[in-house]
Amino acid sequence: MTTLVNQQIVLASRPTGEATLDNFRLVESSVDPDALAEGQVLVRNHYLSLDPYMRGRMNEGKSYAQPQPLGEVMIGGTVGEVIASRNPRFAVGDRVVGMGGWQQYQLVEAHQREVLRKVDTTHVPLTAYLGAVGMPGVTAWVGLHTIVEPKAGETVVVSAASGAVGGVVGQLAKAKGCRAVGIAGGPEKCAFVTDELGFDACVDYKAHRDLKSLAQALKAACPDGIDGCFENVGGLVLDAVMLRMNAFGRIALCGMISGYDGQPIPMANPALILVSRLKLQGFIVSEHMPLWPAALGELGAMVAAGRLKYRESIAQGLASAPEAFLGLLKGRNFGKQLVKLT
Amino acid sequence: MTTLVNQQIVLASRPTGEATLDNFRLVESSVDPDALAEGQVLVRNHYLSLDPYMRGRMNEGKSYAQPQPLGEVMIGGTVGEVIASRNPRFAVGDRVVGMGGWQQYQLVEAHQREVLRKVDTTHVPLTAYLGAVGMPGVTAWVGLHTIVEPKAGETVVVSAASGAVGGVVGQLAKAKGCRAVGIAGGPEKCAFVTDELGFDACVDYKAHRDLKSLAQALKAACPDGIDGCFENVGGLVLDAVMLRMNAFGRIALCGMISGYDGQPIPMANPALILVSRLKLQGFIVSEHMPLWPAALGELGAMVAAGRLKYRESIAQGLASAPEAFLGLLKGRNFGKQLVKLT
Repeated sequence: MTTLVNQQIVLASRPTGEATLDNFRLVESSVDPDALAEGQVLVRNHYLSLDPYMRGRMNEGKSYAQPQPLGEVMIGGTVGEVIASRNPRFAVGDRVVGMGGWQQYQLVEAHQREVLRKVDTTHVPLTAYLGAVGMPGVTAWVGLHTIVEPKAGETVVVSAASGAVGGVVGQLAKAKGCRAVGIAGGPEKCAFVTDELGFDACVDYKAHRDLKSLAQALKAACPDGIDGCFENVGGLVLDAVMLRMNAFGRIALCGMISGYDGQPIPMANPALILVSRLKLQGFIVSEHMPLWPAALGELGAMVAAGRLKYRESIAQGLASAPEAFLGLLKGRNFGKQLVKLT
Repeated sequence: MTTLVNQQIVLASRPTGEATLDNFRLVESSVDPDALAEGQVLVRNHYLSLDPYMRGRMNEGKSYAQPQPLGEVMIGGTVGEVIASRNPRFAVGDRVVGMGGWQQYQLVEAHQREVLRKVDTTHVPLTAYLGAVGMPGVTAWVGLHTIVEPKAGETVVVSAASGAVGGVVGQLAKAKGCRAVGIAGGPEKCAFVTDELGFDACVDYKAHRDLKSLAQALKAACPDGIDGCFENVGGLVLDAVMLRMNAFGRIALCGMISGYDGQPIPMANPALILVSRLKLQGFIVSEHMPLWPAALGELGAMVAAGRLKYRESIAQGLASAPEAFLGLLKGRNFGKQLVKLT
């Protein structure tokens, strides 16, 4: 093979307030498939996953992860195909999932386990490994099973319910015999959440712009109150959920997407944590690696059996990634946001 | 015996904003020691306990407990002496602890267990059963052991550290090999917390009136960050603690005294729950009855051995209770606030 041109998107600058297209820059490098060192694998990335956590990485300062370095390729999960290998664990043609970043090719030092993982695409579509059978699905599984711990008959609410994480949360809760109630933006997403994903109800937060209205809509959707919540959004949505939580309710905090830009968004009434004896707990799925195999096994089996549904928004070409990402932060995507790189 | 005059304090009106003396009214009733029904016990209350939770009961509306009814004797823990009994489990002269309320005498239907409990005053002073070896001590024990779960070498912060609950929290944390750091109001209380109770450090919140200043003082007192927090206050104190929490920190929410009056006090930056993967959990000690015997046993042994210290503020006479209670809400008390009724 000849040297390949590798298009990449790097972080050009850190956002001040909202992220913008100017924060990203498309660059090109080259990679030579015939010049791999011992142990290396060259992967052609087929799909890039876009996820809200990336927005946090773009900021400087204290977060759970290192900030994304300026001038370097944006971090991101990818699925693709091995096109050259000097590693006995990987052969040309293998389908793999990894953290390939916002670029067309990745050269992987594949010695370490977990850097690159071979996947079976006989029963599970390749893209599912970036969604329901990947990091988002495991996020849903871990937060639900280790923090929310719902019992049959309880009511579980999840925000961003049509998204890659939220959709799995509700379907897992249903599988456990719970009432699953989503919160999503707009009638189309809400219809998808109930009609396609099988949630019992879905509240359109765009139709309820103040706390009182949103809390009343939740009350109608959750006649027995809320026992567990998987929170992807924060802000007004979390405030409204807290008003409707039953005693001893559990809230898994997975994302606070509403607060990524600029100033922190306060919690209106934290005394409810005491009044209703709530547990709120934040978590990051990458810190629960021992649970991944069990979660991936269960999620993969459900997808293969058609019992776990999801939807994808696919942007075409690496150059479209920044705009697709900004859309994701605004809730303009519908389901799992991917970028097709081939 | 002749009929006794029983002075009582009832809730005259509900506070609008801050509680005031006008919310209370002193009334008199009578009780005839010779007219007990079968099973009844008449107790002369020696000491009344004043506790922050009472402020919550004065409000109407949703809380974890029924509101205190208007016109009825204020709820409250008491210790006293049996002066008449038609119950085989209690004899005249027995020292007892119960929920006697803000009054001089209580007529108890002592059939049910837990309504009235005989106590031993050989090794433990009677008043300790309202403090370190009573509800406040058990509150400290339950919150620390079931939510904070500190490990040796960790740093535990407790607010209202010179109070009946906070003082026990820090001493139990020290006994577990932790660094115990208090937050209290004023140099005198802080000196007591470190010099008498043996905490490693104490931050004077009155010397740090804004978030930045308080967070910096906490940083100095907690050079390795904060792993566990027992929160009695809420508001600015909680906001500052959250800024200094280490990853996987645990916060037991026991009281939000700063928010009892009027409007809810928001939490400034709830995204820290996610960023630092914190657990916040509210609890009420009366919902953990199975733990009380173990807690009371351990706390009683520690007091008897001189290994658990505390301080009391004693107001004289039932009529002084309302003013002492309002002082407690303002932090004017020093240690456990009691009212001597004899």
